[in-house]
Amino acid sequence: MEKKGLLIVVSGPSGAGKGTVLAHTASKYPNLKYSVSVTTRAPRDKEVDGVNYFFKTEEEFQAMKKDGEFLECKSVYGKSYGTPRFYVEKQLGEGYDVVLEIDTEGALEVKNVYPDCVMVFISPAKRSTIEERLRNRSTESEEQIKLRTQSALKELKQAVFYDYIVVNEDAQQGADDIISIIQAEKCKVKNNKKFIDDLILGGK
Amino acid sequence: MEKKGLLIVVSGPSGAGKGTVLAHTASKYPNLKYSVSVTTRAPRDKEVDGVNYFFKTEEEFQAMKKDGEFLECKSVYGKSYGTPRFYVEKQLGEGYDVVLEIDTEGALEVKNVYPDCVMVFISPAKRSTIEERLRNRSTESEEQIKLRTQSALKELKQAVFYDYIVVNEDAQQGADDIISIIQAEKCKVKNNKKFIDDLILGGK
Repeated sequence: MEKKGLLIVVSGPSGAGKGTVLAHTASKYPNLKYSVSVTTRAPRDKEVDGVNYFFKTEEEFQAMKKDGEFLECKSVYGKSYGTPRFYVEKQLGEGYDVVLEIDTEGALEVKNVYPDCVMVFISPAKRSTIEERLRNRSTESEEQIKLRTQSALKELKQAVFYDYIVVNEDAQQGADDIISIIQAEKCKVKNNKKFIDDLILGGK
Repeated sequence: MEKKGLLIVVSGPSGAGKGTVLAHTASKYPNLKYSVSVTTRAPRDKEVDGVNYFFKTEEEFQAMKKDGEFLECKSVYGKSYGTPRFYVEKQLGEGYDVVLEIDTEGALEVKNVYPDCVMVFISPAKRSTIEERLRNRSTESEEQIKLRTQSALKELKQAVFYDYIVVNEDAQQGADDIISIIQAEKCKVKNNKKFIDDLILGGK
């Protein structure tokens, strides 16, 4: 089939267990690459430029933004983050499937500039799980937990804009679902136009 | 997720190996049921009514057709064949995924009356395989093989109207592709509206 990889955009509320599902996916499906983001924040211990992030100055970041080099970008607490088009396209061109884990706002931006991306929403099986997980892992105040829960519930509403919803009742099953989605997308007629043309015209 | 099964319409030219791929699929994925057709031809040895076919008289068949009881139907050499809506809907309602192996003409009829069906085209990897396979398995005249090959190549051109194309280079891989397609379709947001509504509204 066609060699170019798929861009898979993954979102989901905090507490949905995205990280765990994606870690299982990557370990079962070696053709998957994580996108590496560009950031203006300082590297933390053990973070390696080009592996964890591409570390840039604010000036470099703004120049990239101006040149349309981001699939999406945003600023949080005065630091900028963006998904570099060159890196994603390089991996896709080499035949890797690239996963981009971003919030729903960024995901919709990516869909806009890269309409062929596959949009996957990871959801908990129950609404109540979100609050439970945030509460279990957090050392934050009751007020902060409430704010985070509200924000997560707001993210849930964006699920309808996605192509697929993967319900994380079990992370292994969630990973299998994502791998099936990738496999199925590779079988889509729209992703195999060249093969079909060759077949009909006798090139193959 | 939602309990209702998927209707999977499978077509492909003679010589593509549809039967083998579907047999592997069914043995790996027990939730799959074959649709049983209605026919006016006489039962052959060991054929059981309700298992291989539903055997009907021409009058019964025409009455069913008039009542819109077929998802698609046609006549070949004076005998009639049809896909009974009641049988398909009963299996789907019980949560089974139903596979319907029909020609491209019938497939497009089904899509028309049942737009939620998933259309899968099984194709050989090479155009030349079609003639080779027809030649190998056939005891027919050169003229008949040529006619069958032409008709198979005509079927190939219909691939563009399908959702997915499964290339049968290896029947096991073809079966895995079909199972992935079913799995992915079950994750589609449009097939999980009720789950998402419940999640957002707090029903879950």
